[in-house]
Amino acid sequence: MKVLQEKIRQENFYEEDEFLQRLLKQYMDTELFSYADKQLKNFGQRAAGPIDERARHTDRDGQPRLEQYNKFGEEVSRVWVNEGYRQTVKETYETGIVGYVHKDIPEIARKGSYTYSFAQGYVLSQAEPGFYCPVTLTMATAYLLDHYADEDLKEAFLPHVLATGDTELYEGATFLTERQGGSDVGANVVEAVQDGDHYHLYGEKYFASNAGMCGVAMVLARMEDAPEGSRGLSLFLVPWEGNNLRIRRLKDKLGVRAVPSAEVEFTGAKAYLVGEADRGFYYMMEALNLSRICNAVASLGIMRRSYTEALHYAEGRNAFGRRLVDFPMIQQSLRELRVKLEKETTAVFDMIQLYEKVTESEATKEEEVLNRLLIAIMKKESAEQSIDFAHEAIEMHGGNGYIEDFVTPRLLRDAQVLTVWEGTANILALELLRLVNKYEAHTLFVGMLREKAEGSMKTQIDAMEERLLNFSNLQQVEQELEAKSLMKDMAWLYEDVVYEQL
Amino acid sequence: MKVLQEKIRQENFYEEDEFLQRLLKQYMDTELFSYADKQLKNFGQRAAGPIDERARHTDRDGQPRLEQYNKFGEEVSRVWVNEGYRQTVKETYETGIVGYVHKDIPEIARKGSYTYSFAQGYVLSQAEPGFYCPVTLTMATAYLLDHYADEDLKEAFLPHVLATGDTELYEGATFLTERQGGSDVGANVVEAVQDGDHYHLYGEKYFASNAGMCGVAMVLARMEDAPEGSRGLSLFLVPWEGNNLRIRRLKDKLGVRAVPSAEVEFTGAKAYLVGEADRGFYYMMEALNLSRICNAVASLGIMRRSYTEALHYAEGRNAFGRRLVDFPMIQQSLRELRVKLEKETTAVFDMIQLYEKVTESEATKEEEVLNRLLIAIMKKESAEQSIDFAHEAIEMHGGNGYIEDFVTPRLLRDAQVLTVWEGTANILALELLRLVNKYEAHTLFVGMLREKAEGSMKTQIDAMEERLLNFSNLQQVEQELEAKSLMKDMAWLYEDVVYEQL
Amino acid sequence: MKVLQEKIRQENFYEEDEFLQRLLKQYMDTELFSYADKQLKNFGQRAAGPIDERARHTDRDGQPRLEQYNKFGEEVSRVWVNEGYRQTVKETYETGIVGYVHKDIPEIARKGSYTYSFAQGYVLSQAEPGFYCPVTLTMATAYLLDHYADEDLKEAFLPHVLATGDTELYEGATFLTERQGGSDVGANVVEAVQDGDHYHLYGEKYFASNAGMCGVAMVLARMEDAPEGSRGLSLFLVPWEGNNLRIRRLKDKLGVRAVPSAEVEFTGAKAYLVGEADRGFYYMMEALNLSRICNAVASLGIMRRSYTEALHYAEGRNAFGRRLVDFPMIQQSLRELRVKLEKETTAVFDMIQLYEKVTESEATKEEEVLNRLLIAIMKKESAEQSIDFAHEAIEMHGGNGYIEDFVTPRLLRDAQVLTVWEGTANILALELLRLVNKYEAHTLFVGMLREKAEGSMKTQIDAMEERLLNFSNLQQVEQELEAKSLMKDMAWLYEDVVYEQL
Amino acid sequence: MKVLQEKIRQENFYEEDEFLQRLLKQYMDTELFSYADKQLKNFGQRAAGPIDERARHTDRDGQPRLEQYNKFGEEVSRVWVNEGYRQTVKETYETGIVGYVHKDIPEIARKGSYTYSFAQGYVLSQAEPGFYCPVTLTMATAYLLDHYADEDLKEAFLPHVLATGDTELYEGATFLTERQGGSDVGANVVEAVQDGDHYHLYGEKYFASNAGMCGVAMVLARMEDAPEGSRGLSLFLVPWEGNNLRIRRLKDKLGVRAVPSAEVEFTGAKAYLVGEADRGFYYMMEALNLSRICNAVASLGIMRRSYTEALHYAEGRNAFGRRLVDFPMIQQSLRELRVKLEKETTAVFDMIQLYEKVTESEATKEEEVLNRLLIAIMKKESAEQSIDFAHEAIEMHGGNGYIEDFVTPRLLRDAQVLTVWEGTANILALELLRLVNKYEAHTLFVGMLREKAEGSMKTQIDAMEERLLNFSNLQQVEQELEAKSLMKDMAWLYEDVVYEQL
Repeated sequence: MKVLQEKIRQENFYEEDEFLQRLLKQYMDTELFSYADKQLKNFGQRAAGPIDERARHTDRDGQPRLEQYNKFGEEVSRVWVNEGYRQTVKETYETGIVGYVHKDIPEIARKGSYTYSFAQGYVLSQAEPGFYCPVTLTMATAYLLDHYADEDLKEAFLPHVLATGDTELYEGATFLTERQGGSDVGANVVEAVQDGDHYHLYGEKYFASNAGMCGVAMVLARMEDAPEGSRGLSLFLVPWEGNNLRIRRLKDKLGVRAVPSAEVEFTGAKAYLVGEADRGFYYMMEALNLSRICNAVASLGIMRRSYTEALHYAEGRNAFGRRLVDFPMIQQSLRELRVKLEKETTAVFDMIQLYEKVTESEATKEEEVLNRLLIAIMKKESAEQSIDFAHEAIEMHGGNGYIEDFVTPRLLRDAQVLTVWEGTANILALELLRLVNKYEAHTLFVGMLREKAEGSMKTQIDAMEERLLNFSNLQQVEQELEAKSLMKDMAWLYEDVVYEQL
Repeated sequence: MKVLQEKIRQENFYEEDEFLQRLLKQYMDTELFSYADKQLKNFGQRAAGPIDERARHTDRDGQPRLEQYNKFGEEVSRVWVNEGYRQTVKETYETGIVGYVHKDIPEIARKGSYTYSFAQGYVLSQAEPGFYCPVTLTMATAYLLDHYADEDLKEAFLPHVLATGDTELYEGATFLTERQGGSDVGANVVEAVQDGDHYHLYGEKYFASNAGMCGVAMVLARMEDAPEGSRGLSLFLVPWEGNNLRIRRLKDKLGVRAVPSAEVEFTGAKAYLVGEADRGFYYMMEALNLSRICNAVASLGIMRRSYTEALHYAEGRNAFGRRLVDFPMIQQSLRELRVKLEKETTAVFDMIQLYEKVTESEATKEEEVLNRLLIAIMKKESAEQSIDFAHEAIEMHGGNGYIEDFVTPRLLRDAQVLTVWEGTANILALELLRLVNKYEAHTLFVGMLREKAEGSMKTQIDAMEERLLNFSNLQQVEQELEAKSLMKDMAWLYEDVVYEQL
Repeated sequence: MKVLQEKIRQENFYEEDEFLQRLLKQYMDTELFSYADKQLKNFGQRAAGPIDERARHTDRDGQPRLEQYNKFGEEVSRVWVNEGYRQTVKETYETGIVGYVHKDIPEIARKGSYTYSFAQGYVLSQAEPGFYCPVTLTMATAYLLDHYADEDLKEAFLPHVLATGDTELYEGATFLTERQGGSDVGANVVEAVQDGDHYHLYGEKYFASNAGMCGVAMVLARMEDAPEGSRGLSLFLVPWEGNNLRIRRLKDKLGVRAVPSAEVEFTGAKAYLVGEADRGFYYMMEALNLSRICNAVASLGIMRRSYTEALHYAEGRNAFGRRLVDFPMIQQSLRELRVKLEKETTAVFDMIQLYEKVTESEATKEEEVLNRLLIAIMKKESAEQSIDFAHEAIEMHGGNGYIEDFVTPRLLRDAQVLTVWEGTANILALELLRLVNKYEAHTLFVGMLREKAEGSMKTQIDAMEERLLNFSNLQQVEQELEAKSLMKDMAWLYEDVVYEQL
Repeated sequence: MKVLQEKIRQENFYEEDEFLQRLLKQYMDTELFSYADKQLKNFGQRAAGPIDERARHTDRDGQPRLEQYNKFGEEVSRVWVNEGYRQTVKETYETGIVGYVHKDIPEIARKGSYTYSFAQGYVLSQAEPGFYCPVTLTMATAYLLDHYADEDLKEAFLPHVLATGDTELYEGATFLTERQGGSDVGANVVEAVQDGDHYHLYGEKYFASNAGMCGVAMVLARMEDAPEGSRGLSLFLVPWEGNNLRIRRLKDKLGVRAVPSAEVEFTGAKAYLVGEADRGFYYMMEALNLSRICNAVASLGIMRRSYTEALHYAEGRNAFGRRLVDFPMIQQSLRELRVKLEKETTAVFDMIQLYEKVTESEATKEEEVLNRLLIAIMKKESAEQSIDFAHEAIEMHGGNGYIEDFVTPRLLRDAQVLTVWEGTANILALELLRLVNKYEAHTLFVGMLREKAEGSMKTQIDAMEERLLNFSNLQQVEQELEAKSLMKDMAWLYEDVVYEQL
């Protein structure tokens, strides 16, 4: 007998998502929307079809593999990926998901925008969050080169990082983490030794995502005479191919298996300084803010996929003589999921508008602080939600939800990384403290809410104002204990405000 | 450089757990405790050592495999398990984890108890929740045979199900779920055709855990002339070896990979009726209550392991010049985990005391209702907590927590099944409705709290009383919408009461 | 330090093979050669490059996999192959390796030939013998349909079997072997039940190569009222997609892992009669002769690859202060391999010329007998040689030759099937007996040698004549004991004669 | 339907082998035979049962795996083997297969003998040639320590190498081969740097069998001031545990997958000199002779298993209305296999008698030369035969023989190493030249044949004498071209002589 009375699956991750279309229409000008809408229809279909199918294969049987040695015993540190994966790489970058943030779209003779890129990322990560990761690393690499590299470096590398089929693609990567340091980037010890106009790197990076697939990696290292701590770190561009480096091993990760995450050893790798020496940490923190938005977008993708999978299953499945979707408890669950998804999507895209302004250097100092604040609270909230959504999708499927033939276990496994990558809740809480204690971010936040709410939701905003004021007056230790629950409430209020005004 | 300044791992899952020892001392008489304490010290060491090591191997590389055909092309439906796993099976059953609930412990010439068995299960599931599952299925099988089988069946099979090294072990299994039915057991269609003193079964079971490993399976099926729905179901004992049945496939599960979960096809399998015809569903529901307690115990095991892993990592790991454990936020997280763990463990073992009374038929009608109620709310709460604990353990490890070399991803993958197995939150909520609307369980619950609290916590209990009263007066649809959050609050209050009285 | 002083690998399996080019020039008219030469240069490069690389992946990590059930538990019997493999399938059939034997090559507006097709097969099987197998099955299917199917069947299926990118490709397959029968095809029991203008098949085939990949299979089955033995067998065309059949399992073969070989169960599969009822066995025996030539061609491919691998290794590797290739023993081995390879290639392509005549129905009765004889002895000899060559290649590499990073172990594993498929030495020996005792094939053989030798090699031919005469006068039992060594000597003499005349 | 009418499998690799029993009775004194016969009955049963079953698992799914890093990213170079494999290791060494060659058997208060050990090896390698390899490496290690180590080293390590359950077992290993050198051991470059009473090794060994499993390895290295070539090599004992060495990778071998063969890097590994400096090469060559006998014994094991598998299949399988075994061609094949097996077994055990004398230092100079000669020709012949036998077993099974569910593919894969390990045919041919040209070994060989033949087989021996004389007068280049075929004929004649005299 049949499990489902009727099998329903999505045909197009964009076309069937009217809420997204509505948001994009609001946040894009007509010209760009008209272009993007057409492209996303195409991409949405491929994401729901072949890209999803390949993602399944990559996750279960076709993960990237390290080839440490060739047959002659020579160390090669090559990463093998399956042919379908290579096809997804090609198709995705050719949409301009990275390139058109920085260069003109030929058809309309103008640049795209982060908003468009994140819409693509939202669609893509419904199928393959593990591959959206390399894309976001390439975005961060493009950002760093575009903003801080000198003209020679830019000329040599940026066209490849922005490739859309016009030239050879170099995927990017950002290597921060070291074994002993983890989130404590300032403890890094990889060393850079000058050699004329370039450098040689020595040491090990411990969570080097996209290793072996990237054409260039952006790497934090410490020059020989540099001070301790984060101020002593410089940023380097390291070309991958033929360089003096080795991959010790690929990490056996719970999820996002499409991205090869490695332990990388630099054994004198040639490297080029990016920007000013000793500003590396600050450049990387900027890139990190971009990555945190990417993380939020990936979270939305997983939330959306979880919701639609749960919905379709509930519509097709019978129990106790009714369709699942006819039970009040089920309806309630689905409704709560849908509303939260819409609110969070609205908030994240609202936040992205501010980010566009910041990266275009059109923002005020206050807006920059606000931008960092929103990124911190929305990164945290969306990552936690993506896990909850994945759990809900599993439970809606009952026993089937626990079986890897269904996408639900992968959704959970992939979602779990999102609370860990780019800063855990604790790290983000410390960011809140910094922003509040140093930049009065809490005042800016309440101001923004008031403005956006246009008079409505006064009670809630007032209550938040008072709570934030109290918070700002606490000792640091007490702030630490309070920060995470506060951030959750800030996120929910922000979401309510922007959703109501939609 | 080192990840951890000092590597700390548990040597003994029992000996290092003083809280558990305190609980057991309270809930066992001196003679049994003295025996159990010694045995658990031994078992706790093996669980933290070789059993844990084997569990890791079984999960990652050595999962059970289906051998459908032999080399001659004949269907054999054999399940292969690795040799280490077989060793764990042997060592575990020989502790009497199943046997001594029903038969005498030679050393002390008296039966053990569920309390002792669950203490063993709590220790075991810290290492290998996937193998505690078969143990609990064997417990359910033993329960059903002991309570409902006739003497001939008992004589033939019970000694094997209770084997502790004295005779050949038959692991048990309970097959309820069918493909079209899922939790809706009443929709089952597997058919039983009489043939003299026995029956032949035809049809398919869809989530048949321990298939291929079990010696006997307890199976619900419908006799030819039986009515529709759950009343038409009878319970059968099906010997596995040489019987007419085949395994279609093993499920590729997210976690608990040690237990082979299969789709089983009965093609005329010989079967023996257990108890009265058409009472099968009710027998199985009794067994299900036992399984739900087992589920709660497994949840506790995962919570405990998650907590200790998080603690040890925080103690060994440095960041920003301090040990993790020296950060207030970290201390807060660890403290919350420890307190919740202790409360929930206390509540579950309190509930088990009532269960002992019920299975010994020494309980009143009201106590039976209360027992079902506590099982429903504690199964739901503990399963959800085990997932949360696993998330916390992952986050405490940062990036490492997401890597399968650490136990943390497995803890999450294993925990996830616990909200799904033996009834999802929705199913348990329906149980609450049934108990409240039919048996006034809410009144019994409040009465019990009052009695246990001995006057303390009056405010909270009064508030709960009022809330339950309101709830009991709602329409069913509104009850459904309210039930799950109510159950959570009931669980927390129950835990607070018993923890305070400890 | 380096294993090889200089790494040498083939760039083009055709262009670097001057001997093959010389043979083809001799056996093709100018027009076809000119076309084929250009195409083979292209194909030879791809075979030595990406096709070889994919073959390596398919063999070691990317073998075809059976997906028995979909996620809903429904039996689907789908065979998964990796994306690179799919690319090789596409590229190969689009060369017309099957199609242009039967239909016009657009560029030159005329059909190709078996000679051309086998030249392609020789090149292909140097990279991927396991995929040349499906090609040859498709060739056999095309042969059977072209010669024996009625116009309706032809119209419906033949264009697909001959597809070169112009329409959807249906790969072919021929299912003879049953579990109990093996080579004893007459013992087959798969049953065909008539249903109007078509049939339904019931029963099992045990070595069904290309199952799950084929679009149509040619299947021997017995009609309900048919006599026992091979005369009772009819030939059926069975469309694969959506038909009533299931794959029990894929065989875990020593080599040629690219081709999925399955146990297939027909559960009422729709089938169409091909040709006359009860002539099926004879049709299949004709197809088998084609397959035996294919087998010989695959053997040549493996011999060639083994030789070139051994040569290049000996050229690049130093030992005891010299290159391996400078040792007399090594030179001797390489020289013997080269000469044997050239002789055998010459003989096989000589034999193919006769086969072209036979399939065009331009041959005399005697030539048909001779054709069968040559096929039997050359199939046997070439298969044995391919194994010997693979051993030699391994030994030339020393320890490296035994490591799967090198192609040598795969060459041996693949070669080993060639003595087993399409008739073992014993089966072929029985064919010799049949041809000698029934058709005086020995006389025809000697006559042919005399004619080809044009007076030379008289002593050897006379000796062979006498030996064959004696053989023809032996009792069957004695013939059986003598047959295999006789066949070897016949093969060597035939090779010597045609090689000398080249 | 059934593949085999009746399934026949061996129950006991010793008890069912009457020919072996007859040989052993002849070559052992009564006391030792009486003990050995009893032990071998036991071991033969385990080899045919659980050891064979585990060997199958180890080969197909449970191969040794390299754990390069622990979860904290620290290099550990640990080799994992499955638990069944560990059991086979334990059971086998406890039979005294290594120990009782050098120490007393408690039950009979006397040493065993190589003859007994090789009888055990013959039985074992019918089940698991891949594990017999480590045993033989341990034998070689024991030999080297016993003959050449000083008393301190002996005391510290020999008891462990000879362990039979009485103390912790250290398996042995011999590391000769380097990447650039292969068989050209004199080209080795691993360096030994003195440090007081011990040394530190630096460099890489390329085919280091039993790496990671061994407790001690015997390693050839060159002291800092040592001359080039084989005279500059010293022999060192290297304890494995906790030493400065790493495993780069395990080789992915065609067969004998039970033994981990690695590339090992010494990064200052502590080492102890064995015997005189610069005599290392000669010691190792002595050990190599022992290893070549082991190789021949393993070949016999594979030949025996191939023969019995072929025989049982032919007895159980029907085709064309008869059992396979009733066809004259089949009978001929089986008879030829059996006779060759018996002859070769006789010859190898005859050769072992001479070896016993040599290792006991009771042999004359001439006998030592003869011993080396016999070892060279019998190693070569037996290895080639084991491959042929494996092919024959495969062909006897038809298509089934090619399927890994049957043991036949493994027999071929395992056999293939035997022509490669311990010297290829070319290397052995060079040994023949050395022995003939330097020590007149050809004269000794003929003398031995005459003596053993006791007057019979005069014609053949005379012919051989003449041929050898001619050979000895050839130029080296011509000798090289002739040597391999000559060795084959010498082997066959030697076998005929000793078999006739049995």
